Amino acid sequence: MKKFMNTAETMVAESVSGLVRAHEDIVAFGADGKCVRRRHLAPGKVGLVSGGGAGHEPMHIGFVGPGMLDAACIGHIFTSPTPGEIIAAIEEADTGAGCLLIVKNYDGDLMNFDMAIEMAAGRHRIDKVVVSDDIESERSGDGRGRRGVAGTLVVEKIIGAAAEQGLSIAELKRLADGLNGRIRTMGVALTGVTVPHTARATFTLNDGEIEMGVGIHGEPGHRREPFAASDTIVKQLSETILGDIIKQPGTNALLFVNGLGGTPPAELYLAYAAARRLFEERGVPIERSLVGTFVTSLDMQGLSVTLALLTDREVQLWDSSVTTPALRWSGPV
Amino acid sequence: MKKFMNTAETMVAESVSGLVRAHEDIVAFGADGKCVRRRHLAPGKVGLVSGGGAGHEPMHIGFVGPGMLDAACIGHIFTSPTPGEIIAAIEEADTGAGCLLIVKNYDGDLMNFDMAIEMAAGRHRIDKVVVSDDIESERSGDGRGRRGVAGTLVVEKIIGAAAEQGLSIAELKRLADGLNGRIRTMGVALTGVTVPHTARATFTLNDGEIEMGVGIHGEPGHRREPFAASDTIVKQLSETILGDIIKQPGTNALLFVNGLGGTPPAELYLAYAAARRLFEERGVPIERSLVGTFVTSLDMQGLSVTLALLTDREVQLWDSSVTTPALRWSGPV
Repeated sequence: MKKFMNTAETMVAESVSGLVRAHEDIVAFGADGKCVRRRHLAPGKVGLVSGGGAGHEPMHIGFVGPGMLDAACIGHIFTSPTPGEIIAAIEEADTGAGCLLIVKNYDGDLMNFDMAIEMAAGRHRIDKVVVSDDIESERSGDGRGRRGVAGTLVVEKIIGAAAEQGLSIAELKRLADGLNGRIRTMGVALTGVTVPHTARATFTLNDGEIEMGVGIHGEPGHRREPFAASDTIVKQLSETILGDIIKQPGTNALLFVNGLGGTPPAELYLAYAAARRLFEERGVPIERSLVGTFVTSLDMQGLSVTLALLTDREVQLWDSSVTTPALRWSGPV
Repeated sequence: MKKFMNTAETMVAESVSGLVRAHEDIVAFGADGKCVRRRHLAPGKVGLVSGGGAGHEPMHIGFVGPGMLDAACIGHIFTSPTPGEIIAAIEEADTGAGCLLIVKNYDGDLMNFDMAIEMAAGRHRIDKVVVSDDIESERSGDGRGRRGVAGTLVVEKIIGAAAEQGLSIAELKRLADGLNGRIRTMGVALTGVTVPHTARATFTLNDGEIEMGVGIHGEPGHRREPFAASDTIVKQLSETILGDIIKQPGTNALLFVNGLGGTPPAELYLAYAAARRLFEERGVPIERSLVGTFVTSLDMQGLSVTLALLTDREVQLWDSSVTTPALRWSGPV
């Protein structure tokens, strides 16, 4: 396990502090360093808060800034933030119009975010949306439904833009719930992932194996398969997605190829080309694209393919300006 | 060697085509697919052209767009583009004011870019600048001077912004030559790199070793050392830089921590925090920052630290809007 780290105990805090310092024009630590918030909040708009375990950087703290989140909190690696940290983020983000929490569908996160809501409800108007885009985790049949993975970025971007427009908590929640139902993700790993605290791999793969359907916490997928050409792997991911969601008329497809940490940009673009070709051959023209390393599983080599079917309004929200450490654009060229 | 690829022969073309498709609002293929150009050129300004071997993505094609390059060409992996490909990029980029070529200091690149200049000089006004920021390669004492590595991004961004302002070829060259002298980079690898065509590693490292001073073509560095804490590694990189360049009064420090391909964002930010602290302790306050995977060596795990000492004018040019596939911002928040 060779990583750029000093100790397992300090690595999350050191990395977060690097991100905050590198982007101090956009973000700042909240009180007592319990969360990361926008440097300049926009009073009067609903505060958007997210958070989750560390190990997925730049998500979520890299998505704090104008056009996206107002605050985010970070737990230990692959571990939900505490209710206290979540409340700290709510305190920072609520400038009067209340907060919407964006939570990934995991038991630990749901428990802690719900506890925070209960504890903060007397002082803040709060609601939550749960993101659940990972097809594989539903197929495992544990009854917990789809987990939240890379599609979380899509929800945070689009709801972030809608919040800037002044929508209420209820309106944002309705928009987010509708959108979440139209996002699907499938991931694949070429390597397992080693958790620094235990220095133990959550699963290991030999040179000839890949793991189909991995999550972002080093969870194994549903099947170990022989390593194959990229087109073969991507075809399987894309076909699984097309088998789980049908493009309705009037929706626009966003294709997001996400690196899981150790996969270089050139390989992500190569996989994107194949995914795009496959979706388009199957009657799903791609209207918007994102390729990059945004939702990671430490240094895992692997990627996920996300298809999001957006309404015209959601496309406009996707296109609108965003200025965060990790996602940054300013509308059409 | 597990990579997302189909065949070694097709991987560069497939990856480039993915990048162009994903960003078709910004870039397009030039005639015969010999280069990548801006979709919308800006007639009347000097055309900025760069290029080099593949394997460093997103550099250079990811830097094509408003505020940066006009066209870039890509050779085979770690191999200069041909004079014909370079001329194709010049043809695309010259809208009347001529072209400035930005070339990394490698024998192969210099030879082919010079040949292209000679062949195209009858039809185009052309000059070139050579980027040379890699401290280690000079220390090897082969007489070729510093090679061009991650600092190339800094030159392309700042000269790109200056070109948008209407500067002439001579003015841009003067600016670029001055700037290049104030940029230094040092890299480190945790793993070697495997070239797909040969399926052979250019060097290999065992679990307890790192390679200090690596280039971006899998060249070994000057010394193999025991794997150590990130702060120890980063300190060595940063001190080597401070031993090679002195901050003059009136300059502003840009710190750029660049991933070499297989290093996740969280580790880059952790290294950034240490580098920043070290430079600031040594009297070099950091005024601008960039952290990300921009100039790669295939899937190598490693990073480089670049320090660029910018004039006030160069800081303004750095800050100005840029819209490319890999680098995108729109001025102050």
